[in-house]
Amino acid sequence: MIAKSKWLNRIKWDENGLVPVIAQEVGSNDVLMFAWMNREALARTAELGQAVYWSRSRKKLWHKGEESGHFQQVHEIRIDCDEDVVLLKVEQVGGLACHTGRHSCFFNKFVGGSEPDWAEAEPVLKDPDDIYKK
Amino acid sequence: MIAKSKWLNRIKWDENGLVPVIAQEVGSNDVLMFAWMNREALARTAELGQAVYWSRSRKKLWHKGEESGHFQQVHEIRIDCDEDVVLLKVEQVGGLACHTGRHSCFFNKFVGGSEPDWAEAEPVLKDPDDIYKK
Repeated sequence: MIAKSKWLNRIKWDENGLVPVIAQEVGSNDVLMFAWMNREALARTAELGQAVYWSRSRKKLWHKGEESGHFQQVHEIRIDCDEDVVLLKVEQVGGLACHTGRHSCFFNKFVGGSEPDWAEAEPVLKDPDDIYKK
Repeated sequence: MIAKSKWLNRIKWDENGLVPVIAQEVGSNDVLMFAWMNREALARTAELGQAVYWSRSRKKLWHKGEESGHFQQVHEIRIDCDEDVVLLKVEQVGGLACHTGRHSCFFNKFVGGSEPDWAEAEPVLKDPDDIYKK
Protein backbone atom coordinates (compact mmCIF):
# COMPACT_ATOMS: atom_id res chain seq x y z
CA MET A 1 0.00 0.00 0.00
CA ILE A 2 2.90 2.37 0.70
CA ALA A 3 4.34 1.85 -2.77
CA LYS A 4 0.90 2.28 -4.29
CA SER A 5 0.37 5.69 -2.71
CA LYS A 6 3.83 7.09 -3.46
CA TRP A 7 2.48 8.88 -6.53
CA LEU A 8 -0.04 10.72 -4.35
CA ASN A 9 2.80 12.09 -2.22
CA ARG A 10 4.18 13.98 -5.23
CA ILE A 11 1.16 16.31 -5.11
CA LYS A 12 1.57 19.48 -3.09
CA TRP A 13 -1.79 19.50 -1.33
CA ASP A 14 -2.85 22.96 -0.14
CA GLU A 15 -3.50 23.96 3.48
CA ASN A 16 -6.94 22.31 3.23
CA GLY A 17 -5.52 19.10 1.78
CA LEU A 18 -6.89 19.94 -1.67
CA VAL A 19 -5.54 20.38 -5.18
CA PRO A 20 -7.21 22.33 -8.02
CA VAL A 21 -8.31 20.19 -10.96
CA ILE A 22 -8.96 21.18 -14.57
CA ALA A 23 -11.11 18.81 -16.64
CA GLN A 24 -10.37 18.94 -20.36
CA GLU A 25 -12.23 17.03 -23.05
CA VAL A 26 -10.26 14.46 -25.03
CA GLY A 27 -10.45 15.24 -28.74
CA SER A 28 -11.82 18.79 -28.71
CA ASN A 29 -9.42 19.82 -25.93
CA ASP A 30 -12.21 22.05 -24.57
CA VAL A 31 -11.84 23.00 -20.92
CA LEU A 32 -15.03 21.64 -19.42
CA MET A 33 -14.86 22.53 -15.76
CA PHE A 34 -12.72 23.24 -12.74
CA ALA A 35 -13.05 21.55 -9.36
CA TRP A 36 -11.02 20.32 -6.40
CA MET A 37 -9.77 16.95 -5.17
CA ASN A 38 -8.43 15.69 -1.88
CA ARG A 39 -6.13 12.69 -1.65
CA GLU A 40 -8.98 10.19 -1.50
CA ALA A 41 -10.73 11.76 -4.50
CA LEU A 42 -7.61 11.50 -6.64
CA ALA A 43 -6.94 7.93 -5.51
CA ARG A 44 -10.53 6.93 -6.35
CA THR A 45 -10.36 8.73 -9.71
CA ALA A 46 -7.30 6.67 -10.63
CA GLU A 47 -8.86 3.41 -9.39
CA LEU A 48 -12.27 3.96 -10.96
CA GLY A 49 -11.21 5.64 -14.21
CA GLN A 50 -13.93 8.23 -13.65
CA ALA A 51 -13.59 11.68 -12.12
CA VAL A 52 -14.27 11.86 -8.39
CA TYR A 53 -13.95 15.35 -6.94
CA TRP A 54 -14.17 16.83 -3.45
CA SER A 55 -17.18 19.06 -3.08
CA ARG A 56 -16.10 22.01 -0.95
CA SER A 57 -19.72 23.15 -0.44
CA ARG A 58 -21.09 19.72 0.50
CA LYS A 59 -17.83 18.64 2.18
CA LYS A 60 -17.90 15.17 0.68
CA LEU A 61 -16.64 13.15 -2.24
CA TRP A 62 -18.50 13.90 -5.44
CA HIS A 63 -18.50 11.22 -8.10
CA LYS A 64 -19.26 13.49 -11.06
CA GLY A 65 -22.33 12.14 -12.86
CA GLU A 66 -23.74 10.26 -9.86
CA GLU A 67 -27.00 12.24 -10.16
CA SER A 68 -27.00 13.28 -13.82
CA GLY A 69 -25.42 10.22 -15.42
CA HIS A 70 -22.84 12.60 -16.90
CA PHE A 71 -19.77 10.72 -15.74
CA GLN A 72 -16.29 11.68 -16.89
CA GLN A 73 -14.23 8.79 -18.23
CA VAL A 74 -10.63 9.60 -17.42
CA HIS A 75 -8.13 9.07 -20.25
CA GLU A 76 -5.16 10.80 -18.69
CA ILE A 77 -4.10 12.42 -15.41
CA ARG A 78 -1.40 15.06 -15.46
CA ILE A 79 0.21 17.39 -12.92
CA ASP A 80 2.01 20.64 -13.59
CA CYS A 81 5.62 21.65 -13.01
CA ASP A 82 4.88 22.80 -9.45
CA GLU A 83 2.98 19.56 -8.78
CA ASP A 84 0.11 21.49 -7.24
CA VAL A 85 -2.47 21.41 -10.06
CA VAL A 86 -4.09 18.36 -11.72
CA LEU A 87 -5.23 18.21 -15.34
CA LEU A 88 -7.69 15.44 -16.24
CA LYS A 89 -8.26 14.50 -19.86
CA VAL A 90 -11.76 13.10 -19.96
CA GLU A 91 -14.48 11.82 -22.17
CA GLN A 92 -17.62 13.62 -21.06
CA VAL A 93 -20.58 11.24 -21.03
CA GLY A 94 -23.66 12.99 -22.44
CA GLY A 95 -21.48 15.82 -23.73
CA LEU A 96 -22.57 18.05 -20.86
CA ALA A 97 -20.20 19.00 -18.06
CA CYS A 98 -22.10 21.96 -16.66
CA HIS A 99 -25.06 21.78 -14.28
CA THR A 100 -26.68 24.53 -16.40
CA GLY A 101 -27.01 22.04 -19.28
CA ARG A 102 -24.09 23.40 -21.25
CA HIS A 103 -21.12 21.56 -22.71
CA SER A 104 -18.61 23.56 -20.68
CA CYS A 105 -18.88 25.60 -17.49
CA PHE A 106 -16.90 28.41 -19.15
CA PHE A 107 -19.76 29.97 -21.07
CA ASN A 108 -19.45 33.57 -19.90
CA LYS A 109 -17.24 35.62 -22.18
CA PHE A 110 -15.78 39.04 -21.45
CA VAL A 111 -16.88 41.75 -23.84
CA GLY A 112 -14.78 44.92 -23.70
CA GLY A 113 -15.54 48.39 -24.97
CA SER A 114 -17.06 51.38 -23.20
CA GLU A 115 -19.28 49.17 -21.00
CA PRO A 116 -17.22 46.05 -20.30
CA ASP A 117 -19.36 43.12 -19.21
CA TRP A 118 -19.84 39.34 -19.49
CA ALA A 119 -22.03 37.74 -22.16
CA GLU A 120 -23.25 34.14 -22.42
CA ALA A 121 -21.45 32.54 -25.34
CA GLU A 122 -22.55 28.90 -25.24
CA PRO A 123 -26.02 27.43 -25.70
CA VAL A 124 -27.97 25.42 -23.13
CA LEU A 125 -28.13 21.97 -24.73
CA LYS A 126 -30.44 20.34 -22.21
CA ASP A 127 -32.84 21.71 -19.62
CA PRO A 128 -31.29 21.19 -16.16
CA ASP A 129 -34.69 19.95 -14.90
CA ASP A 130 -34.37 17.07 -17.35
CA ILE A 131 -30.79 16.34 -16.37
CA TYR A 132 -31.48 15.85 -12.69
CA LYS A 133 -34.85 14.06 -12.95
CA LYS A 134 -33.11 10.72 -13.41
CA MET B 1 -14.85 54.17 -13.40
CA ILE B 2 -17.70 52.51 -11.49
CA ALA B 3 -19.35 51.34 -14.71
CA LYS B 4 -15.98 50.17 -15.98
CA SER B 5 -15.33 47.95 -12.99
CA LYS B 6 -18.82 46.43 -12.79
CA TRP B 7 -17.60 43.37 -14.70
CA LEU B 8 -14.94 42.76 -12.04
CA ASN B 9 -17.63 42.60 -9.36
CA ARG B 10 -19.15 39.54 -11.05
CA ILE B 11 -16.10 37.50 -9.99
CA LYS B 12 -16.35 35.67 -6.68
CA TRP B 13 -12.90 36.44 -5.31
CA ASP B 14 -11.74 33.95 -2.68
CA GLU B 15 -10.89 34.77 0.94
CA ASN B 16 -7.50 36.07 -0.24
CA GLY B 17 -9.02 38.22 -2.96
CA LEU B 18 -7.83 35.82 -5.65
CA VAL B 19 -9.34 33.78 -8.45
CA PRO B 20 -7.80 30.69 -10.11
CA VAL B 21 -6.89 31.16 -13.77
CA ILE B 22 -6.42 28.55 -16.51
CA ALA B 23 -4.41 29.63 -19.56
CA GLN B 24 -5.35 27.76 -22.72
CA GLU B 25 -3.68 28.13 -26.10
CA VAL B 26 -5.77 29.47 -28.95
CA GLY B 27 -5.76 27.02 -31.86
CA SER B 28 -4.35 23.90 -30.21
CA ASN B 29 -6.59 24.35 -27.15
CA ASP B 30 -3.70 23.00 -25.06
CA VAL B 31 -3.86 23.89 -21.38
CA LEU B 32 -0.61 25.77 -20.87
CA MET B 33 -0.57 26.72 -17.22
CA PHE B 34 -2.54 27.57 -14.12
CA ALA B 35 -2.06 30.66 -11.97
CA TRP B 36 -3.94 33.20 -9.84
CA MET B 37 -5.17 36.75 -10.30
CA ASN B 38 -6.35 39.44 -7.95
CA ARG B 39 -8.69 42.22 -9.04
CA GLU B 40 -5.87 44.45 -10.25
CA ALA B 41 -4.24 41.63 -12.23
CA LEU B 42 -7.48 40.87 -14.08
CA ALA B 43 -8.14 44.56 -14.75
CA ARG B 44 -4.62 44.99 -16.15
CA THR B 45 -4.94 41.81 -18.23
CA ALA B 46 -8.08 43.22 -19.87
CA GLU B 47 -6.49 46.67 -20.42
CA LEU B 48 -3.17 45.37 -21.70
CA GLY B 49 -4.37 42.38 -23.70
CA GLN B 50 -1.58 40.32 -22.13
CA ALA B 51 -1.79 38.01 -19.12
CA VAL B 52 -0.93 39.62 -15.80
CA TYR B 53 -1.11 37.26 -12.84
CA TRP B 54 -0.70 37.59 -9.08
CA SER B 55 2.37 35.77 -7.86
CA ARG B 56 1.45 34.22 -4.53
CA SER B 57 5.10 33.42 -3.74
CA ARG B 58 6.48 36.87 -4.61
CA LYS B 59 3.29 38.64 -3.48
CA LYS B 60 3.24 40.99 -6.44
CA LEU B 61 1.79 41.40 -9.91
CA TRP B 62 3.48 39.19 -12.44
CA HIS B 63 3.32 40.25 -16.06
CA LYS B 64 3.96 36.86 -17.64
CA GLY B 65 6.90 37.14 -20.01
CA GLU B 66 8.45 40.20 -18.35
CA GLU B 67 11.70 38.27 -17.84
CA SER B 68 11.52 35.62 -20.55
CA GLY B 69 9.83 37.57 -23.34
CA HIS B 70 7.21 34.80 -23.38
CA PHE B 71 4.16 37.05 -23.09
CA GLN B 72 0.65 35.71 -23.45
CA GLN B 73 -1.53 37.66 -25.89
CA VAL B 74 -5.06 37.36 -24.60
CA HIS B 75 -7.70 36.53 -27.20
CA GLU B 76 -10.57 35.79 -24.86
CA ILE B 77 -11.42 35.93 -21.16
CA ARG B 78 -14.11 33.62 -19.80
CA ILE B 79 -15.55 32.81 -16.39
CA ASP B 80 -17.34 29.66 -15.33
CA CYS B 81 -20.91 29.08 -14.15
CA ASP B 82 -19.96 29.76 -10.52
CA GLU B 83 -18.07 32.90 -11.55
CA ASP B 84 -15.09 31.89 -9.46
CA VAL B 85 -12.66 30.59 -12.10
CA VAL B 86 -11.17 32.46 -15.09
CA LEU B 87 -10.22 30.85 -18.40
CA LEU B 88 -7.85 32.83 -20.64
CA LYS B 89 -7.48 31.93 -24.30
CA VAL B 90 -4.02 33.07 -25.24
CA GLU B 91 -1.43 33.08 -27.95
CA GLN B 92 1.79 31.99 -26.27
CA VAL B 93 4.71 34.07 -27.52
CA GLY B 94 7.72 31.82 -28.09
CA GLY B 95 5.52 28.73 -27.78
CA LEU B 96 6.78 28.13 -24.23
CA ALA B 97 4.57 28.67 -21.20
CA CYS B 98 6.59 26.69 -18.67
CA HIS B 99 9.66 27.94 -16.82
CA THR B 100 11.21 24.51 -17.45
CA GLY B 101 11.36 25.33 -21.18
CA ARG B 102 8.36 23.22 -22.12
CA HIS B 103 5.29 24.19 -24.13
CA SER B 104 2.91 23.42 -21.26
CA CYS B 105 3.38 23.16 -17.51
CA PHE B 106 1.34 19.92 -17.51
CA PHE B 107 4.11 17.59 -18.61
CA ASN B 108 3.93 14.99 -15.84
CA LYS B 109 1.65 12.14 -16.77
CA PHE B 110 0.26 9.50 -14.43
CA VAL B 111 1.27 5.96 -15.27
CA GLY B 112 -0.78 3.27 -13.53
CA GLY B 113 -0.06 -0.41 -13.03
CA SER B 114 1.61 -2.20 -10.15
CA GLU B 115 3.92 0.76 -9.39
CA PRO B 116 1.84 3.87 -10.14
CA ASP B 117 4.00 6.93 -10.71
CA TRP B 118 4.43 10.11 -12.76
CA ALA B 119 6.46 10.22 -15.98
CA GLU B 120 7.61 13.22 -17.99
CA ALA B 121 5.62 13.26 -21.22
CA GLU B 122 6.67 16.51 -22.92
CA PRO B 123 10.10 17.52 -24.21
CA VAL B 124 12.16 20.50 -23.01
CA LEU B 125 12.18 22.79 -26.06
CA LYS B 126 14.59 25.37 -24.74
CA ASP B 127 17.15 25.37 -21.95
CA PRO B 128 15.77 27.48 -19.07
CA ASP B 129 19.22 29.11 -18.74
CA ASP B 130 18.75 30.49 -22.25
CA ILE B 131 15.21 31.66 -21.52
CA TYR B 132 16.10 33.81 -18.53
CA LYS B 133 19.45 35.20 -19.75
CA LYS B 134 17.69 37.98 -21.62
